[in-house]
Amino acid sequence: MQNFVYDIPTKVFFGKWQISHLVDQIKPFWNKILLTYGTWSIKKIWLYDQIITLLKEKNIQYRELWDILPNPDISSVREGIELCKRNEIQFILAVGGGSVIDASKAIALGYFYPGDPRDMFCKKTAITQALPLGTILTLAATGSEMDPYLVISDREKQEKRDYGNPIVLPKFSILDPTYTYSVSPKQTVAGIVDIMSHIFEQYFSPTSATEVQDSIAEGLLQTCIYYGHQVIADPENYDARANLMRTSSLALNGLLGLGKQQDRASHNIEHALSAVYNITHGDGLAIIFPRRMEYVLWDGTNPIILDKFVDFARHVRHIHRIWDDLDIARAGIEALRNFRSQIGAPRKLSDVDILLPDFDMLADKVVVNWSIGGFKSLEKKDIIDILQQCA
Amino acid sequence: MQNFVYDIPTKVFFGKWQISHLVDQIKPFWNKILLTYGTWSIKKIWLYDQIITLLKEKNIQYRELWDILPNPDISSVREGIELCKRNEIQFILAVGGGSVIDASKAIALGYFYPGDPRDMFCKKTAITQALPLGTILTLAATGSEMDPYLVISDREKQEKRDYGNPIVLPKFSILDPTYTYSVSPKQTVAGIVDIMSHIFEQYFSPTSATEVQDSIAEGLLQTCIYYGHQVIADPENYDARANLMRTSSLALNGLLGLGKQQDRASHNIEHALSAVYNITHGDGLAIIFPRRMEYVLWDGTNPIILDKFVDFARHVRHIHRIWDDLDIARAGIEALRNFRSQIGAPRKLSDVDILLPDFDMLADKVVVNWSIGGFKSLEKKDIIDILQQCA
Repeated sequence: MQNFVYDIPTKVFFGKWQISHLVDQIKPFWNKILLTYGTWSIKKIWLYDQIITLLKEKNIQYRELWDILPNPDISSVREGIELCKRNEIQFILAVGGGSVIDASKAIALGYFYPGDPRDMFCKKTAITQALPLGTILTLAATGSEMDPYLVISDREKQEKRDYGNPIVLPKFSILDPTYTYSVSPKQTVAGIVDIMSHIFEQYFSPTSATEVQDSIAEGLLQTCIYYGHQVIADPENYDARANLMRTSSLALNGLLGLGKQQDRASHNIEHALSAVYNITHGDGLAIIFPRRMEYVLWDGTNPIILDKFVDFARHVRHIHRIWDDLDIARAGIEALRNFRSQIGAPRKLSDVDILLPDFDMLADKVVVNWSIGGFKSLEKKDIIDILQQCA
Repeated sequence: MQNFVYDIPTKVFFGKWQISHLVDQIKPFWNKILLTYGTWSIKKIWLYDQIITLLKEKNIQYRELWDILPNPDISSVREGIELCKRNEIQFILAVGGGSVIDASKAIALGYFYPGDPRDMFCKKTAITQALPLGTILTLAATGSEMDPYLVISDREKQEKRDYGNPIVLPKFSILDPTYTYSVSPKQTVAGIVDIMSHIFEQYFSPTSATEVQDSIAEGLLQTCIYYGHQVIADPENYDARANLMRTSSLALNGLLGLGKQQDRASHNIEHALSAVYNITHGDGLAIIFPRRMEYVLWDGTNPIILDKFVDFARHVRHIHRIWDDLDIARAGIEALRNFRSQIGAPRKLSDVDILLPDFDMLADKVVVNWSIGGFKSLEKKDIIDILQQCA
């Protein structure tokens, strides 16, 4: 196990009606807030009305920024920063899924940043100031409600960049699983795929002797599979929504990855894909991840790689009756692919209407933006190979 | 799953040489500190010298309170409070295992408490002020380094009381697994038993649909068993010490228990035992726990009870070839008992020199101090039964 620092002070209010804690978390400290959200969905479930009523009752002044779309664009961030400056905003309340929360984090950082917010993610100098923010989660997926990360797109330049800074960790997050009842099957599945991908990228690691992280990861993966089936059959199953929501936060709050080398290659490849084609992040991951796993597995030079895949197959997919390690590992990946098909995740690029992709251009975008592959180092030709197998 | 609030802001520095962060965590805020520790063991491993050198380098003034013994007594707490008041102490640095940390938490609370500290634990009114504290852990066991709980004995009255208050959550905890290399096999085993008991008391619960907590609990239990064997064979195995240390914190920081009804019956029975006989807490738990499990299991009225025991046997002890649920459950408990015997934990009261205990008096102490049994309610005669089976 490697050394690490765990420092996640986000206060989590989990369960039904936890919105009752909202104003207690804001009023004593801040009086002018920016309310951020996506589309009409928070109005459809009456969440918007509840929030406004609570804010008005306590005379908390608010401005609104809406229309923050999936793969949130830097233009929303610029608009939000402008709005905050004009209204002397002290606190941001993000109501939505990862896109709304990530855009809000970028606005919180950009408020104090002297240049264009797009440059924040490229600078070497650390940003040390941000507006405080809190979240009300409406989609179990990215883990942004309890992590220091954000991903912002620049649609104009067809780019997507991720960034992490502990100063944007939410002060509090309200997690009421009933807010996710109305999430569509497609988005629910994409969320589950995203959660599982976060877990995988920390689980499949070359760092040895990390039983504590790995056994937790295996437990969370099993939770995703168990409740993944249930939630597709019954979208208003509270237990399923609750367990998935809790898992989304635990998947990326440091619990699994701290103390281990990590590998975000699949996420990074997917970011290039959704930057260019604006597909749902989880859909892209569903297509790329099993291919990427197989690609790593084919490299037989590192025995730790094979062991990890065998562990996954045995402990998570309960494959016991095959005796050859490589066969077990392959059966594990196939079982994962089958689970995803059962819940309706896409399997190949054509399933999300990407028919004749420019592999070379996509690979360039991955390589330019990130160093790639902690588990097995990937070069441009590897990325093209993986993408071609996804077609 | 039940509603919950997770709010654990403790910053954890984990790994070798993390003591390098010590003064950065203290100096900017506090300049007069109380250093608390147990016996000579922190001097034997040169930890004491390192701490003193670091404090002196930054001109941090310190006073010392030592000789805080296992099952820490209220007299140490009184002495510490007196020392803090006399020296206008601003911060407490607890260096040791759970006993030192718990006594330090009680001192932190007692500093602002107007009466005798013994009364703090009985009062209905919430205590809202405490001195801030940090910890340097030298024993993986109680989880006190990342939880709001403390247990204090009153040797004179043969009583032991537990108490929880979020205001005593450590500001930071430094967890360097190498500090536990010299922990004796007996204390290492008692620590493992304590960790596993914490996990069990949250795992065996009547709350349904808590797959996320339960799968993590199963992972942590497997970690204890896997590295338990390793650490006994090789006390300076870094990986084993590291995984056990991380598990001790995660076992009681809310991750497993929040959202579930809990059952601290075994801990409560043990507290009466160690209050009277001053045995090592983990030894008492090793004796009581399997008996208590069997006692609960014999009550076949609640199907959730049996299911949980079957899950434990299957998922943690990997017992698959028995088909009758009750037989599997019993085999799971027996496998647990065997593991503990293999690592050298005591099995019965006579193993810790309790030869002719006064069962009636012990049961009275349990019943008087706590309401007992969240999983299955226990009355005085149940407690006597359980204790008699431990003889």
